[in-house]
Amino acid sequence: MRTIKIGMFGLGVVGSSVVSILRKNQDIIRSRLGMGLKVSRAVVANPGKSRPIPTDDIAISSDPSTILDDPEIEIVVELIGGVDAAGTVVLGALNAGKPVVTANKALLAERAREIFSKVYETDLSIGMEASVAGGIPVLRSLKEGLSGDHIVEISGIVNGTCNYILSRMSAEGAPFEEALAEAQRLGFAEADPAFDVDGYDAAHKLAVLVNLAYGTMVEFKDIHVEGIRAITPADIGYARQQGYAIKLLAIAKLDDGEVEARVHPCLVALDHMLASVNGVFNAVFLTGDNVDATMSYGRGAGGEPTGSAVVSDIIDIARNIKAGIRSKIPPLSVVAESLRDLKVMEMGRIQTEYYLRFQVLDRVGVLAQITRVMGQNNISIQSMVQPARSDHPDQPVQVIILTHRAREADEMKSLEEIAPLDFIAGETQLIRIARFTG
Amino acid sequence: MRTIKIGMFGLGVVGSSVVSILRKNQDIIRSRLGMGLKVSRAVVANPGKSRPIPTDDIAISSDPSTILDDPEIEIVVELIGGVDAAGTVVLGALNAGKPVVTANKALLAERAREIFSKVYETDLSIGMEASVAGGIPVLRSLKEGLSGDHIVEISGIVNGTCNYILSRMSAEGAPFEEALAEAQRLGFAEADPAFDVDGYDAAHKLAVLVNLAYGTMVEFKDIHVEGIRAITPADIGYARQQGYAIKLLAIAKLDDGEVEARVHPCLVALDHMLASVNGVFNAVFLTGDNVDATMSYGRGAGGEPTGSAVVSDIIDIARNIKAGIRSKIPPLSVVAESLRDLKVMEMGRIQTEYYLRFQVLDRVGVLAQITRVMGQNNISIQSMVQPARSDHPDQPVQVIILTHRAREADEMKSLEEIAPLDFIAGETQLIRIARFTG
Repeated sequence: MRTIKIGMFGLGVVGSSVVSILRKNQDIIRSRLGMGLKVSRAVVANPGKSRPIPTDDIAISSDPSTILDDPEIEIVVELIGGVDAAGTVVLGALNAGKPVVTANKALLAERAREIFSKVYETDLSIGMEASVAGGIPVLRSLKEGLSGDHIVEISGIVNGTCNYILSRMSAEGAPFEEALAEAQRLGFAEADPAFDVDGYDAAHKLAVLVNLAYGTMVEFKDIHVEGIRAITPADIGYARQQGYAIKLLAIAKLDDGEVEARVHPCLVALDHMLASVNGVFNAVFLTGDNVDATMSYGRGAGGEPTGSAVVSDIIDIARNIKAGIRSKIPPLSVVAESLRDLKVMEMGRIQTEYYLRFQVLDRVGVLAQITRVMGQNNISIQSMVQPARSDHPDQPVQVIILTHRAREADEMKSLEEIAPLDFIAGETQLIRIARFTG
Repeated sequence: MRTIKIGMFGLGVVGSSVVSILRKNQDIIRSRLGMGLKVSRAVVANPGKSRPIPTDDIAISSDPSTILDDPEIEIVVELIGGVDAAGTVVLGALNAGKPVVTANKALLAERAREIFSKVYETDLSIGMEASVAGGIPVLRSLKEGLSGDHIVEISGIVNGTCNYILSRMSAEGAPFEEALAEAQRLGFAEADPAFDVDGYDAAHKLAVLVNLAYGTMVEFKDIHVEGIRAITPADIGYARQQGYAIKLLAIAKLDDGEVEARVHPCLVALDHMLASVNGVFNAVFLTGDNVDATMSYGRGAGGEPTGSAVVSDIIDIARNIKAGIRSKIPPLSVVAESLRDLKVMEMGRIQTEYYLRFQVLDRVGVLAQITRVMGQNNISIQSMVQPARSDHPDQPVQVIILTHRAREADEMKSLEEIAPLDFIAGETQLIRIARFTG
């Protein structure tokens, strides 16, 4: 039986898992592929370092050319992460005529145009299932399962760290810092958590999703990003009283020829499936114009789930090789001639509902003034709750307002006008409310 | 731009939706495929019948050879349903060298060996995504997304009619007949509901899932099937008190070289995602040895969701044609040489936990006798609840027992021994409890 040789860049957690899976599951993989798969070369920064897996049968080097110039290597796997060196590897492999598998959402999001232009130019395959939502085959759903549908909407919980933190805050009333510390203790958050909790990781993944859904090359820098640091247990409690959970969502939709692409915390109705997604789990809601709402759920991170997705991409490319073709499905779902240059909609132009928490002094006429300013800015109010009165006239009270659908620019203008009013006793909290088309 | 011509058997709800989608979404389909798709011929029982869609550009006939013998037809779509005539169509198309798309789970399950042997023999593609869980791309997840994983377990809510009925019974305490009547009124159940509520439809779908997961050719007749007619609002209430919902599940796993494949009502822990799947929605839980638990959720029936899946299969085959290949992925996930002849495990040998509801006369010593018989048969009790005492000595009371994991044969033997005891005042209810590996 023929064996396809793989060259792997990076032998960290995911890389080691990929090697392990290819060994442990070689029987089932052979039965599905009719060929064998073997990582025969690896390139790492420090070849002498000890690894969690046996590497006797892998030729390890620090020199990329040992993989890129080896004609026996038919598939290149990039798992070094980062943007610069990884980009050199991926472009180098494509230029050498080798198909690529990568889990690197940062690279795919920050250098989308450069990478995908090269993939289209070479007509080679790029496997990137592991870059979004770990082992959940959500990119395949976009490229194949919903290939006859217009993608109406994408709404995803795609960062397990944030979802874990928000789940703990919700279950225990813990403040953000405490839930973050617990996540770090359990290995669900990095020592420097900024990349996750500030929403950048989710925005990288959203760029990949948007580009596959709409056949375009939006980049990370075009995406509006807010993280979860400002969410308080009080907000979670007030939201729950109104029938909502708070989740960090990555949202995309086509609207008037532009694409909305934004990552921020959202109120999600408690009876919506996304509100049931807790802990480190990920879930992506895809709505098509025919299939209506679908959801894919599973583990979004971790060596084995991510390794599983990398292996599925390797098998997909090996099936191309076996069939004698370079690729079957265009890298961004559409053929090169149909790529579009979609603009990301400015945030001021989006329309949504809002949760607002004002901190005000408990005086007569305060609510009238707030609602007057909002009315002047075309903001219509859905509900208003003042959960408790103040014990002392100088101690602020909380006022929770849920608005009807409004333009973001109008909403921001009303908050700017309200901020300097003399009864305002603290920063106003704004969280958007997610409504789903499916 | 080249247009691929499709021959369609059947122009009912799903067939009409497929034609509509191909027309309505022709721009997006062309952008993804780089070719056009057109239903140019249809074969129906009654060509003169009026249709819900314009058919001026479709040559309609009652003669199958108008499609099968037309060299211009490159893809055959079978949507007539049933087993005999549909089988003739599918085998005829394959023998004519034409790839096939079908939504026909009955055919795929009842004549699995015959159909798949022919598909393997011809090396043609058969698209069958629409046969399980409507528009949810769960077969693609099995064949591609989890291609590097051993499938540890499948647990699916794959019949929307049953899930709707159980959801209504749960939400409103309605008896089965009332919830069924409502489902019929809303078009969620057929006038003759047996096929759905007795579990046959779910078992057909399970056969398809099992064969794709394990590369085998299990048939419908091998699968243990129970429906939901015997479930009462009282059972749903007692289950809820113990922390469970009741769902009709299709379950499969590999166990000791045999495959468990069974459809029956199950208690599902309320905090498990499957317990949140309500109404006509479907969801399939797939657990892989690396990816762990994943779930796909969406609409399992209806013209547009099912049509969406048919169209995605047509596009997949058209991409093969464009790439110049007959097929890329083996029809049952594994290459022909690796097909296995797996035996379905006898129900007596499965092991699970049980919910039992005994109807007994309210006498001293009853619980002792029940537990003694169960103990003698190796059944260990997890909990026992007697929700109410009787007002009158002749009026039976309910005793709810949840058991630990036990062998089905032992469980059945204990019930046989308990049935004739003089305090038993009615049929004993048995519902299995689903535990998930992921």
